[in-house]
Amino acid sequence: MMSIKTVSENKAFGGTQGVYSHASEKTGTGMTFSVYVPPHASGQKLPVLWYLSGLTCTHANVTEKGEFRAACAEHGIVFVAPDTSPRGDDVPDSADEYDFGKGAGFYVDATRKPWRKHYRMRSYIERELPETLAAHFPVDMDRQAITGHSMGGHGALSIGLRNAARFRSISAFSPIVAPSRVPWGEKALGRYLSDDRAAWREYDAVALIEDGARHEHILVDQGTADNFLAEQLQTHRLTEACDAAGMSATIRMQDGYDHSYYFISTFMAEHVAWHAERLKG
Amino acid sequence: MMSIKTVSENKAFGGTQGVYSHASEKTGTGMTFSVYVPPHASGQKLPVLWYLSGLTCTHANVTEKGEFRAACAEHGIVFVAPDTSPRGDDVPDSADEYDFGKGAGFYVDATRKPWRKHYRMRSYIERELPETLAAHFPVDMDRQAITGHSMGGHGALSIGLRNAARFRSISAFSPIVAPSRVPWGEKALGRYLSDDRAAWREYDAVALIEDGARHEHILVDQGTADNFLAEQLQTHRLTEACDAAGMSATIRMQDGYDHSYYFISTFMAEHVAWHAERLKG
Repeated sequence: MMSIKTVSENKAFGGTQGVYSHASEKTGTGMTFSVYVPPHASGQKLPVLWYLSGLTCTHANVTEKGEFRAACAEHGIVFVAPDTSPRGDDVPDSADEYDFGKGAGFYVDATRKPWRKHYRMRSYIERELPETLAAHFPVDMDRQAITGHSMGGHGALSIGLRNAARFRSISAFSPIVAPSRVPWGEKALGRYLSDDRAAWREYDAVALIEDGARHEHILVDQGTADNFLAEQLQTHRLTEACDAAGMSATIRMQDGYDHSYYFISTFMAEHVAWHAERLKG
Repeated sequence: MMSIKTVSENKAFGGTQGVYSHASEKTGTGMTFSVYVPPHASGQKLPVLWYLSGLTCTHANVTEKGEFRAACAEHGIVFVAPDTSPRGDDVPDSADEYDFGKGAGFYVDATRKPWRKHYRMRSYIERELPETLAAHFPVDMDRQAITGHSMGGHGALSIGLRNAARFRSISAFSPIVAPSRVPWGEKALGRYLSDDRAAWREYDAVALIEDGARHEHILVDQGTADNFLAEQLQTHRLTEACDAAGMSATIRMQDGYDHSYYFISTFMAEHVAWHAERLKG
């Protein structure tokens, strides 16, 4: 139990970019994740930045295109990128849809058949993978932060708000801020969970804030040229929820940027530095 | 003639990462290339850094994984990444071999049938693409530098040495330094060119130096954990040729790094800054 297999390890920026796999109890499948460990002193324990990926992605997208390693090496931060859903021939899927099923786990614990057996990304990310990480890597689990992109921005905000004491800071690139109120989220939460929208609220950052969740350190970047902004992302709903709650948050509209990794990589170093400031000591 | 088609453009680090295609007269095929234009004043002409890719690559590998944009934006440098061979159903290939045919143009003008009709990457890179670039982008063609990886490191060194007055500086990551003397090069040069090894010398950096080519600004980084070092890359041959010629060059062995983009991206910013210093004014 909790053993991991090394898929690959490459030296990068003085540290090690690794890809690992393990048998997950929560999802009942094999799971793959990447971990970047920057250069550090022997025995030193480093703070951790979680990165949750968006629709259709695996650990590989940000690992290859995220441009986080230079900043993580500079600030001494371990960067962890999980997959976005369970995988394998045994896992039910909806092959014609990019926004549901494999690659679209939405960081929920599904309660509806046939999804509930394997689609347990909430428990996997919140409980199982942190234990695995702590057992195998030089991490200080008292210093964690979380970020993500799009569906993974939703994951970072909702997991961060539900576990505000665990994560010192939360950031997101182009997040789905209110999945209950947009097509991507309505489809996914409706099918994974229930027709009862009350069950969706713990998976909706705006609803969590409306229901009392708070965090002092939130940073969001959103491109103005993002094709998904108006229909699916609706950043303004987060701004309005924070204002109504009297909660401060840094929510920035970035002129001319789209939904791609060209946008994410542009602001990645800034996000890493922002988290690093909050992960000190 | 010389018109180009925009495949994609994404804002990145304040500039524009574009991918473009055009009909090449030299190769007789469509060709795709990427150009990053950093933020700049209207009417300003910027220096150019060429990046030639390795075996199996297209323009996309470095464009997605090279981590050059932050440094190019900082230093105001246009970064151009061509493809590695002609493409298309009409182009002869050797489908079972990753190191010959499509994806393996070796930056030569082939003289043997059936390769000589389309495999004209030397003329394409040295003549046609620079003209296209100058016609469509804000570039100062009096300030050019060149770099590349593996087969593209061979390309950068050999094109740079043959055109020493055009390129102010030459660098390479894990280059094939003496293709005439290693399996990858012997296969490619023998089939594209001739059995007469004298015809290979203008495509071999070490042979070019032995035959009198000189350049004052050469930087090479090579990982010590690179699987191809001993058989295909043989960095020591370049060091020996420079020593014998009394030519200074910075050739660095980087401990523990392999042949991947994790290595390239680690040292990319340093290469861009080194070229930028030589591209000033």
